[in-house]
Amino acid sequence: MRRLYPGHGASRGNALGRARVRQPHALEVAEERIAPHQAAAEVARLHEAIDTVRAELRDLRSRLHGALAHEVGEFLDLHALLLDDPELLQGLDGLIANELHGADFALRVQRDRLAAVFESMDDPYFRSRVEDIDHVIGRIHSALHRHDAQVTGVAGEILVADSLAPSEIARLHTRGVLGIVTAGGSMLSHTAILARSLHLPLVVGSPQALTQVNDGDVLMIDGATGLVIVDPDADDLRAHRERVREGKRERRQLHRLRREPSRTVDGVDIRLYANAETREDVAEAHALGAAGVGLYRTEFLFLQRDELPSEEEQFVAYRDLVLGMTGRIATIRTLDIGADKADGSGLALPYEPNPALGVRGVRLALRRREVFTSQLRAILRASGYGPIRILLPMVARREELLAARRLVRTVATRLRREGHAVADGIPLGAMIEVPAAAIALPAIIDLVDFVSIGTNDLVQYLLAADRGNDALADLHSPLHPAVLQLLHQVITTARTHGRPAAVCGEMAGDALFTPLLLALGLEEFSLHPGNLLEVRRAIRAQELAALRTAAPALLRARDQAGIERWLAAVAAA
Amino acid sequence: MRRLYPGHGASRGNALGRARVRQPHALEVAEERIAPHQAAAEVARLHEAIDTVRAELRDLRSRLHGALAHEVGEFLDLHALLLDDPELLQGLDGLIANELHGADFALRVQRDRLAAVFESMDDPYFRSRVEDIDHVIGRIHSALHRHDAQVTGVAGEILVADSLAPSEIARLHTRGVLGIVTAGGSMLSHTAILARSLHLPLVVGSPQALTQVNDGDVLMIDGATGLVIVDPDADDLRAHRERVREGKRERRQLHRLRREPSRTVDGVDIRLYANAETREDVAEAHALGAAGVGLYRTEFLFLQRDELPSEEEQFVAYRDLVLGMTGRIATIRTLDIGADKADGSGLALPYEPNPALGVRGVRLALRRREVFTSQLRAILRASGYGPIRILLPMVARREELLAARRLVRTVATRLRREGHAVADGIPLGAMIEVPAAAIALPAIIDLVDFVSIGTNDLVQYLLAADRGNDALADLHSPLHPAVLQLLHQVITTARTHGRPAAVCGEMAGDALFTPLLLALGLEEFSLHPGNLLEVRRAIRAQELAALRTAAPALLRARDQAGIERWLAAVAAA
Repeated sequence: MRRLYPGHGASRGNALGRARVRQPHALEVAEERIAPHQAAAEVARLHEAIDTVRAELRDLRSRLHGALAHEVGEFLDLHALLLDDPELLQGLDGLIANELHGADFALRVQRDRLAAVFESMDDPYFRSRVEDIDHVIGRIHSALHRHDAQVTGVAGEILVADSLAPSEIARLHTRGVLGIVTAGGSMLSHTAILARSLHLPLVVGSPQALTQVNDGDVLMIDGATGLVIVDPDADDLRAHRERVREGKRERRQLHRLRREPSRTVDGVDIRLYANAETREDVAEAHALGAAGVGLYRTEFLFLQRDELPSEEEQFVAYRDLVLGMTGRIATIRTLDIGADKADGSGLALPYEPNPALGVRGVRLALRRREVFTSQLRAILRASGYGPIRILLPMVARREELLAARRLVRTVATRLRREGHAVADGIPLGAMIEVPAAAIALPAIIDLVDFVSIGTNDLVQYLLAADRGNDALADLHSPLHPAVLQLLHQVITTARTHGRPAAVCGEMAGDALFTPLLLALGLEEFSLHPGNLLEVRRAIRAQELAALRTAAPALLRARDQAGIERWLAAVAAA
Repeated sequence: MRRLYPGHGASRGNALGRARVRQPHALEVAEERIAPHQAAAEVARLHEAIDTVRAELRDLRSRLHGALAHEVGEFLDLHALLLDDPELLQGLDGLIANELHGADFALRVQRDRLAAVFESMDDPYFRSRVEDIDHVIGRIHSALHRHDAQVTGVAGEILVADSLAPSEIARLHTRGVLGIVTAGGSMLSHTAILARSLHLPLVVGSPQALTQVNDGDVLMIDGATGLVIVDPDADDLRAHRERVREGKRERRQLHRLRREPSRTVDGVDIRLYANAETREDVAEAHALGAAGVGLYRTEFLFLQRDELPSEEEQFVAYRDLVLGMTGRIATIRTLDIGADKADGSGLALPYEPNPALGVRGVRLALRRREVFTSQLRAILRASGYGPIRILLPMVARREELLAARRLVRTVATRLRREGHAVADGIPLGAMIEVPAAAIALPAIIDLVDFVSIGTNDLVQYLLAADRGNDALADLHSPLHPAVLQLLHQVITTARTHGRPAAVCGEMAGDALFTPLLLALGLEEFSLHPGNLLEVRRAIRAQELAALRTAAPALLRARDQAGIERWLAAVAAA
């Protein structure tokens, strides 16, 4: 029967497919019954999870070392024993086979039974055992669902879930999932930003969908209006086809913008650069009328191989980039790698407990002179073929810029002596992503020719929240007053000193943030070519003077909600 | 024969002992010869290092998993083979036994021989093998010296080294090392700050000492003047005894300051609070006339045990703290723990790839309500016994403060209903250590009653440099213009809003930084009681008005050198 649930559109696009429902991973599970024929499979699923936990505990045990190995080891042994404890496990099978509880609910029932017994005892030893039981049951539960998460969502399906971690979005997209509906979430979350950048339809804030939709239901979603329809009827399907056609028309219209300027309503030209890594990115950037490449990542040359790339191999890659841009500027970022990414590279970096706060970017380059020199030689040789700029990642202080400038000069002199053509006055820029460099920009601005603000890392450091840590996806947001104030300050400082400033983080490629960045004074964006036309369209719809007038209100916001209200007011105006 | 080498005093104190020389860990070793009777031991030492590397490679191999396991594995196998390769190893023993080279130099000679052979070949395969040889030799070399580092410096010795990592200082102090001389280093490095806080004599910038002093030489060092004397004569020894007596007199004089106010020359009272963890810290803080405890760390209650501390156990600890301060204020910081510290605690936290940017401090507290509630109950119950304040770590935004305030209110209401005495209006403060909270302080200041600036973490995030990573010890410095500007901004904002602001990081406890912090407007310090009197003495020597007049020049400094010049000028004035 046709049913309709409202949600909020978070990433545009229409999808029609079968539902795959992923229940939230909480022990507070509702009482649920399974069909008798499912019981054997459910018992098997539970035992598989128990085996997984047993192996995990064994593995943990084997990795113990140091001062507390003995004590912690005994603790682990106890938990491994519990897994074979009839007190704990007896009855779990029965709860599934006889009472037709799902594995989750059976775990819950059994946990409560045992806890009640232990908690009624006077001896503190028994009371504390409840915690052990919770620990073990929690592990089994999580093993049950780790397995789930891996099988959730395949090609042609629409995933319905409580919430989604940013790290899952790219995986689901690769696997061909057509669209996503979440019970929670917001359109400004990191997850939503990623969905938009991949053009993956997403509806957020639809809790009814999670409780009412079943696996295999036919689902239709509209990522613009937020509408979720179960078992669509003939009219719905007609409307869906029409919207898909509309989407195509819109993309054609968007495509026409490739020859139009990125100019605001009041006639101010904004420069859109492309972030690029592959030949295809470069070709697309060129075709869409990007002002140039604002961020060419060079890590791909170094990763997934045992030896370092030769100067010649790098030269060919950089030269082809320059040739591909036919006279538009190509900004090459020098190696931005650290202990977290360098596994399987020829760099042989030591382990670091916090690689995001470690020897990365220009820090590594200045310590591994032979690697840096070879890259600079390749870049400078490519400068003979067209305009390039050099961009240094992770700059924190003057000393680094002085050392890098010195090295560029030395390398250029040597190359010219060797007979290579090297352009004069190649601009050297700094990524502004280390907070200290952003705050004290006036202290280094004389040493850079341009700046590129890396909001992804900048936000990570400003909020002290690892951007790869899904548990902090909510905190890792550019919509913090400190982020906006600092962006405004960096853009203003750069302008005062006559240095171009671009933003090259994810937020630059999201049309939702375009008015905000324009209001903060930004005049250069660097973004994935796949998002260029949408951002151009957004720019062409804005009146810059009005946004700049509204900027002080934006900078007064005290929290994310205040910033979101500003964005909503601007969108409505 | 008596020799005298000048250096720079970096941590006061005089030491007389035998020298232990640690040569720098670089393959660029000087040609050195060993005595014939040492040859067998040197060969054994080399083979021990080779065995270590073999075991390391085996271990690395066993931990491989994921996409590149196969390729990287083959690479490791190759290196393991090299370790048994006669081409590489043949002759090493001979170089030591016959030519009496040390193991380092033998490695160097053998490396160059093999490299010359390979580099003369035309086939790129052989040329790239030089890199593999360097990799393996580098590992052996580092294994040789890891072993050294562990045995370097025992009780009664003075360590002479090229440089020293911050992480080594505490270990050397514990082992009874009397003093340290380094060839490089600066008195404002993290290493020097730690040496001063432990009152461990340190002379930096004495490269002659490293090349001229031999193991076992009798050494006399003066950490105030930077003088290093080898084989001191009778006059030197007399002078040394006199300086030791002087040191004692000085400590007695310092001790007299325990009853004096922390008042500048121009009559401004500065409040000195103590950082405390143990009963002894609290007693000392009280005895030295601290204004109160500014930072009571509660992690010790949670670490190195399998279960969580009970509310009662925590209550007793907090109550005793309050009683110990006899009416002076006690500031209790709620649990500041994350995945990096929680091993072997009852918290069972998941692994995080960057724990310093992970779920720590108030983030963890708000996710583990039962743990946080139990701690708040204990703290609020202790408030019946004397004045307390609650300090929340890792605050980043309004939402966290609102949630914490709500919970404190709820817990207080419930405790009163249960019949407990709970003080009214207990001040709730925030650690300012997440850069976003520092930058956007005006957006949260209405929700806090006081702030405490945690410069250790703040510097770590501002510079994106892990403070535990020795490779970045140089970068992890509070003497960056951005750090000083932000400190000044936080202190000013707090004062404008009538909120007390203290600094509680290491820099607050180092008298060298006292003029700098006073110039930035700081009126409250929180520091280890062991450093309280020295900082009090430093305060009593300053004229606040002059420092504030000099502040704009400090804030204009563009790099560490500029800040150091300011400090030197103030010290000379």
